[in-house]
Amino acid sequence: MESHESMVIQWLKKNQARGTFLLQKLVQEGSIRGHESRAQAIIIEKCRELKLKLDIWEIGDKELINHPKFCSDRKSFLDNPNVVGLLKGKGGGKSIILNSHIDVVPEGDRTKWREDPFSGLVEHGRLYGRGSSDMKGGTVALLLAIEAIRATKLQLKGDVIFESVIEEESGGAGTLATLLRGYRADGAIIPEPTNLKFFPKQQGSMWFRITVHGKSAHGGTRYEGTSAIEKAMLIIQHLQKLEAERNSRVNDPLYEHISIPIPINVGKMNGGNWPSSVPDLAIIEGRMGVAPNETMEQAEKEMESILLALQEVDPWFSLYPPMIEWFGGRWLPGNLPVEHPLVEVITGSYEEITTKKPLIEASPWGTDGGLLSQVGKIPVIIFGPGVTEVAHDANEYINLEDMFMAAEIIALAVLRWCEVAI
Amino acid sequence: MESHESMVIQWLKKNQARGTFLLQKLVQEGSIRGHESRAQAIIIEKCRELKLKLDIWEIGDKELINHPKFCSDRKSFLDNPNVVGLLKGKGGGKSIILNSHIDVVPEGDRTKWREDPFSGLVEHGRLYGRGSSDMKGGTVALLLAIEAIRATKLQLKGDVIFESVIEEESGGAGTLATLLRGYRADGAIIPEPTNLKFFPKQQGSMWFRITVHGKSAHGGTRYEGTSAIEKAMLIIQHLQKLEAERNSRVNDPLYEHISIPIPINVGKMNGGNWPSSVPDLAIIEGRMGVAPNETMEQAEKEMESILLALQEVDPWFSLYPPMIEWFGGRWLPGNLPVEHPLVEVITGSYEEITTKKPLIEASPWGTDGGLLSQVGKIPVIIFGPGVTEVAHDANEYINLEDMFMAAEIIALAVLRWCEVAI
Repeated sequence: MESHESMVIQWLKKNQARGTFLLQKLVQEGSIRGHESRAQAIIIEKCRELKLKLDIWEIGDKELINHPKFCSDRKSFLDNPNVVGLLKGKGGGKSIILNSHIDVVPEGDRTKWREDPFSGLVEHGRLYGRGSSDMKGGTVALLLAIEAIRATKLQLKGDVIFESVIEEESGGAGTLATLLRGYRADGAIIPEPTNLKFFPKQQGSMWFRITVHGKSAHGGTRYEGTSAIEKAMLIIQHLQKLEAERNSRVNDPLYEHISIPIPINVGKMNGGNWPSSVPDLAIIEGRMGVAPNETMEQAEKEMESILLALQEVDPWFSLYPPMIEWFGGRWLPGNLPVEHPLVEVITGSYEEITTKKPLIEASPWGTDGGLLSQVGKIPVIIFGPGVTEVAHDANEYINLEDMFMAAEIIALAVLRWCEVAI
Repeated sequence: MESHESMVIQWLKKNQARGTFLLQKLVQEGSIRGHESRAQAIIIEKCRELKLKLDIWEIGDKELINHPKFCSDRKSFLDNPNVVGLLKGKGGGKSIILNSHIDVVPEGDRTKWREDPFSGLVEHGRLYGRGSSDMKGGTVALLLAIEAIRATKLQLKGDVIFESVIEEESGGAGTLATLLRGYRADGAIIPEPTNLKFFPKQQGSMWFRITVHGKSAHGGTRYEGTSAIEKAMLIIQHLQKLEAERNSRVNDPLYEHISIPIPINVGKMNGGNWPSSVPDLAIIEGRMGVAPNETMEQAEKEMESILLALQEVDPWFSLYPPMIEWFGGRWLPGNLPVEHPLVEVITGSYEEITTKKPLIEASPWGTDGGLLSQVGKIPVIIFGPGVTEVAHDANEYINLEDMFMAAEIIALAVLRWCEVAI
């Protein structure tokens, strides 16, 4: 490690308390959808302190709303801005985007939380609260890394673009807006909660709704009707076959420890409305995983053709074809080659800081990385300190040690990627 | 046909308009559950006119509520009485109960009705409106028969007990109350809408609810969870097997034209609540048909033991056994031998009036006849003028010709069953 790198790492080791304090403040401002402004105010103040060039704007213009990858059912984006802080480089180095989302999912059933969901309580090296892992701990790791570079007065060649976006949990409109505003870089790091694993590839996903028709009749003469529930069961069985077939094609070694790399999850089914009537309607809702090397449209077509083929299995479906809608959430897959220099730089930093071998896998969920890579053509790596298992769950927490370690790894990677101007 | 019998039939042929008028008034008072009083007022006035001994009472005493066959979720029975009108015989003849329910099912989606659901419109020999077939047309046939006997001044040996009860559509509490009040007879006719067929046997039925547990997980890693919807599908497949097995045992010739004499209908299934989560709960609701020659308890046990046996098919069910509840509707089966004198008398009357062979079958639905026969030990035959297919449907109607024919057949049967005192 070079001496300026050691300075940065040393500064980080001495200033961990600043990170804990910042994370606590961010968790205590529970920034669920539509209420992101106060947490963003903390971010803005921190960026100002770090003398980053601030860009604060309310997203939602026509260009965004009409973009083919725009996905949101939000009524208004007013008052809850996107924030970008730019650390301008001297020129001649590679630039990097450090992207993190400020929105958190709702706290869910409060009775399942031991403490207030937004307590920010620190206990035995963990900090508790909604968003601690997903992904305010990641945000703090990014800001600590930038602060360490600032504090040691190092000047970088490439730009560092720090992005604190809204709407990740609901389809990525915040990150899409940064792209439409013109932000691009030679690489991007998104510190989602990966348990410090590296995900150059990410499973994409999208929601579907299948409407299945039956024919009503009295339950006592059910043979006079056709059960929409039974027809829906037949469809689910064919979705299971499709899932098996799609997954048999996935041969990327990054998936070798994952039993179903791109699952088709039936999350919801509602059929019928009266115990003694034959149900004439059933609705299936679910999530279809999309492989890193396929497009959303390819996956859509594959499921649609399975539904069409059902007409040959059961003539009922010729009369009453099941109807599919692609509604709600959509997350593009990410697909960075493992050999990419960005992966080398950040996993190399990991090895130096931790003296361990990095774990490189494919993620089972999509992130805003899909938008950065597919729309922005930016190489993206997902790597962060949060605990995967507790994200979205009650009693979410983060191991503070991991957050500090991620800050060191990211700082080192930024120094090497953007290069220091001597 | 004897001369006094001809007199009665002649009176009926001349006074059909009285029946149309009475039915129209009854249909126009839409007596859905909890609002039966105005239609009952018309019945009371008619019974008074016919000089029947009236018994009018509000059901719902402790004896009824605590009876093992009581089945109702109704909050209050106040203000909507049961009505019984007694035509006392001279003695020495067999008595008969003529039972009819005054409650009608709700009109449903009004946009599907061509006319107001309670219009009572008469067009091309049909009278339209909710309850016309199920079963106010039957009620009018009974009252016309009694009126004809009254008008021709014939004195019967046996008693005629006319019953206009509430709550048939919701579990039979009205008819159960007549039994607890002491009403019994040597036979009973219930003119439910049978298209003028005879149903000495009726399928019983009861509702069930099965709660199925799963284990939640994120849809992207669905292999970490267990889908309650998939487990529910397995249960439904086993219910289908149980249905096949139960029906293979039904060898009563009355069922030979019915493809599934005692169906198990899955009417409702709700599972999961989020497209991208593995569902941890699914609820199945349905209706189980009960054979005329089995008890409700036997049928219950059979389904419960199938659910228990599932533990050997799938170990998941040992950890999380599906839970079954027998909730809501329960209708006891009826099982009168075809050779019973009551069947002979009424089918004989049919042959004389119509000069056709009677159609004797088993009904696919339960009626209050199950209570009369099982609790009251009264031989019951179901026979009435309504149109089976339109009961509970939009644009319900009755063929008035059938109603008049039913009145003649029932009048003739009553004369022969109760005997005329010369």
